[in-house]
Amino acid sequence: MSCLVKVIEDVIIEIPESSIQKRLRILQEGISGKIKINPCLEIREVSIPRPSLGDENSYVDLIKNELKKSNLSIDYPALKDISNKVMDKSKHKFIIFKNEVIGLSNLEENVYGIAIDIGTTTVVTYLFNIETGKLIDIESILNPQIKYGEDLISRITYSINNGVNSVQNSIIEGINLMIDALCLRNNISYNSIYEMTAVGNTAMHHIFLNINPKSLSLSPFTPVVSSSVDIKSRELGIKINQSGNVHVLPIISGFVGADTIGVLLATELYKNDEISLAIDIGTNGELVLGNNKQMVSCSCAAGPALEGGHLKFGMRASTGAIESVFIEDGSFKAFYKTISNGKPKGICGSGIIDVVSEMLKVGLLDPSGRIINKDCERVRKNPSNGQNEYVIEWKHNTEISKDIVITASDIREIQLAKGAIATGINILLEKLKITANDIDNLYLAGAFGNYIDIKSAIRIGLIPNIPLDRIKSIGNAAGEGAKISLLSKEKRIEENEINKKIDYIELAAEENFNDEFVKSLRFPVYGI
Amino acid sequence: MSCLVKVIEDVIIEIPESSIQKRLRILQEGISGKIKINPCLEIREVSIPRPSLGDENSYVDLIKNELKKSNLSIDYPALKDISNKVMDKSKHKFIIFKNEVIGLSNLEENVYGIAIDIGTTTVVTYLFNIETGKLIDIESILNPQIKYGEDLISRITYSINNGVNSVQNSIIEGINLMIDALCLRNNISYNSIYEMTAVGNTAMHHIFLNINPKSLSLSPFTPVVSSSVDIKSRELGIKINQSGNVHVLPIISGFVGADTIGVLLATELYKNDEISLAIDIGTNGELVLGNNKQMVSCSCAAGPALEGGHLKFGMRASTGAIESVFIEDGSFKAFYKTISNGKPKGICGSGIIDVVSEMLKVGLLDPSGRIINKDCERVRKNPSNGQNEYVIEWKHNTEISKDIVITASDIREIQLAKGAIATGINILLEKLKITANDIDNLYLAGAFGNYIDIKSAIRIGLIPNIPLDRIKSIGNAAGEGAKISLLSKEKRIEENEINKKIDYIELAAEENFNDEFVKSLRFPVYGI
Repeated sequence: MSCLVKVIEDVIIEIPESSIQKRLRILQEGISGKIKINPCLEIREVSIPRPSLGDENSYVDLIKNELKKSNLSIDYPALKDISNKVMDKSKHKFIIFKNEVIGLSNLEENVYGIAIDIGTTTVVTYLFNIETGKLIDIESILNPQIKYGEDLISRITYSINNGVNSVQNSIIEGINLMIDALCLRNNISYNSIYEMTAVGNTAMHHIFLNINPKSLSLSPFTPVVSSSVDIKSRELGIKINQSGNVHVLPIISGFVGADTIGVLLATELYKNDEISLAIDIGTNGELVLGNNKQMVSCSCAAGPALEGGHLKFGMRASTGAIESVFIEDGSFKAFYKTISNGKPKGICGSGIIDVVSEMLKVGLLDPSGRIINKDCERVRKNPSNGQNEYVIEWKHNTEISKDIVITASDIREIQLAKGAIATGINILLEKLKITANDIDNLYLAGAFGNYIDIKSAIRIGLIPNIPLDRIKSIGNAAGEGAKISLLSKEKRIEENEINKKIDYIELAAEENFNDEFVKSLRFPVYGI
Repeated sequence: MSCLVKVIEDVIIEIPESSIQKRLRILQEGISGKIKINPCLEIREVSIPRPSLGDENSYVDLIKNELKKSNLSIDYPALKDISNKVMDKSKHKFIIFKNEVIGLSNLEENVYGIAIDIGTTTVVTYLFNIETGKLIDIESILNPQIKYGEDLISRITYSINNGVNSVQNSIIEGINLMIDALCLRNNISYNSIYEMTAVGNTAMHHIFLNINPKSLSLSPFTPVVSSSVDIKSRELGIKINQSGNVHVLPIISGFVGADTIGVLLATELYKNDEISLAIDIGTNGELVLGNNKQMVSCSCAAGPALEGGHLKFGMRASTGAIESVFIEDGSFKAFYKTISNGKPKGICGSGIIDVVSEMLKVGLLDPSGRIINKDCERVRKNPSNGQNEYVIEWKHNTEISKDIVITASDIREIQLAKGAIATGINILLEKLKITANDIDNLYLAGAFGNYIDIKSAIRIGLIPNIPLDRIKSIGNAAGEGAKISLLSKEKRIEENEINKKIDYIELAAEENFNDEFVKSLRFPVYGI
């Protein structure tokens, strides 16, 4: 909000280290896919014969004959290119997408593609050689839409009030900057990038497509379009070849987006007999439970607490964030690790789960969520509100010269968040008439799922207490889905099939939602 | 070329009346088609049900369900429109082209279409109500490409040297100005125009599509594309609805264009058992001969003489042009009619045919093309070159204060022109192994065919000597073809079938071309 400050004399502006983009820990890697490289782009090296007098074929006819494709069309920029390229040289690479020639290139030019994961907070771009399937480079930025609000609701509200154009422009510009960087670093022309696949939650999806997301903010939260969308890059202003295809993966509902389809592509949950539960926790938690016979999904309004939001010392996962915690029984002293070993500034998501879990373990927290005063100096009453709080680190050891504490309100926020997720899981289990024990695979997707301590997550009741060997952190599975869709034609066809097979459960419309939620607020008593 | 004149003192610039666009006689009407109105655009009035909570359909799904179309896609601008329009109102007109929704409009809005005939010299635009098939208005201009050269070769040469962009821009701008005028005059929004069909010769066709026409200027004169082309208006910059379809009719060869396909659609030559010959005379003469079993076509390099070009007093068909002539035997005095009854300034195409025909009739011209000095004052020797010339009108009666004459060189030009056409006709007749007498219908298309005296045309040997009742002037049949393609889905399908059925004969590659041409230079001796 610095734009609102009036400068009245010389000032020194200090940019907090934590806000510097480069230091952010952005999860770029997902599970290593073992997919067969068979991209949707078809690349054909073909010689076009020179026409002769009396030959009634046009150049387009000659091209169609050589490519041996009926109903082949030629995208307009490629059509204009023919008179320049085909007349001068006889052999070319023809790049074809869905029966349309979208490019003619020299034989020595490689054909590239881009997979992109548009997160609310971060955007990650993967550059591939489409022909070999080789990952060439990765680039990431903070989502520049952040100027329209950190959370989705602010951005949707801005779009409703001011139109979606500027919000969309900011993400397109951000993506184009990443493409610039990738092209420059790898010495390739953006003209040789012929496809982009994109995932994101439903709001990111709509905004990226310049579709006003207003219907997502009003009951019944109907998305404008849910099946996958293919649009020419020039329509969106994406700086790849102007005939290049931008493929946006399908979404499941107003609250379960293309990122979840990405998770499903990465896990192949929809292909197995075994029951799997995929959990992607961000501000919303998206869940899918099922197997090749039946799948249900829901979205849980977890809020930002699990990412450090709304907590007194919550912070993003950047240098100095406490990311894991151990509390010594008896002394109640906290031992912890910070990101990049910086002096502590606050606590990020994985640290929060650990703190709560450890407090439960040593008895500083009871199952109702009350902080217990164990007569140790680290648990104290906050004089301003009379609530208990637990001191993780004293101010003389912190970067911020303040005691870093977990307050009773923080605990309440975490209870609401984990309660929302747990309620979602329970309702999905009920829908399939199974129990947690029937879950053969539990996939934790996304940055949160990658960095949290699984035992801590179980102890606070965020995820069910099932054998650890069934639980897998699968990294940035949403981005992985975008990559898979870029490189595999078969998988791309499956996207829209998955989409149709999943039953979306609107939790708030479930009869037992409130009872379940109240139950799920409590911490479990496992004795572990 | 006035841009090359250096102004050194105050000058008065006189703009010859004949060059003022409004006075030009532009042929806008074709034969009245009796086609069934069944446009390619599908217009559906449909109510979209409001979604309910738990409904898994997106708005796009709801629309697809109501339109009951499988594989329906939605053009990107229409997709963006959905969140604004469908959420607010339940019943809309959906405009669909080839399984793609290209527009959503209010029920009370009409849907319009435009047919356009892009001639080398003039461009005519017809505005239709697509739903009723009613012609609303017509607008025409001189082709603004004229600044890149009056004839095709100059414009092609310019495009080769400087790129085709500026030449294309000029025609697009011209068309957009006509659309502006049509919209303004009829109080309609250009957004409600959802389709345009266009015809033109091959060079006009390529330039309109921003395809460099260089291949048309070099043997084997291969066009870049010959089948019909559908392009979104926004790709071309045409100012109709941005999702509107621009349909360019197919061409037959590098020299026989979409205008000829238009003539065929208008005459239905390709459907009849009877043998028909269609002749469209401009700078090139395009011929098609045949019936529902076989069709041959060719292009004859007639040059501009038949339109008044390269003749001493030749001029366009505008005010003051001598358009018909009668020469009195004995006195050899010429009686004539001028366009708009202006004082004579020169002779236009139909007048030229008449003069030659009349000179043959009264013996002022022999079959070899020699002007005979009949000892009358109207035939005289030009002192500068010693050649005979015939005076049509004395200078005191003309607007230009010069004697208006036909020179021996003029006659030679006309012989070359009519010889080229006659050669084409004879070679096509030979191809089908028939004679002129087998021709059941002879269609004269275009302005030239509309205004000439048919008997004169026969007498000079431009067209075969067959019974007059078999000869029909069919007006602007090219434009008629564009209209038919706009309003009839069946006919539009036929376009590309015709295109494939016609054999194009490259006259210059024919063995007997030279012999035929030399023979055809002579004027016939019919004694009529």
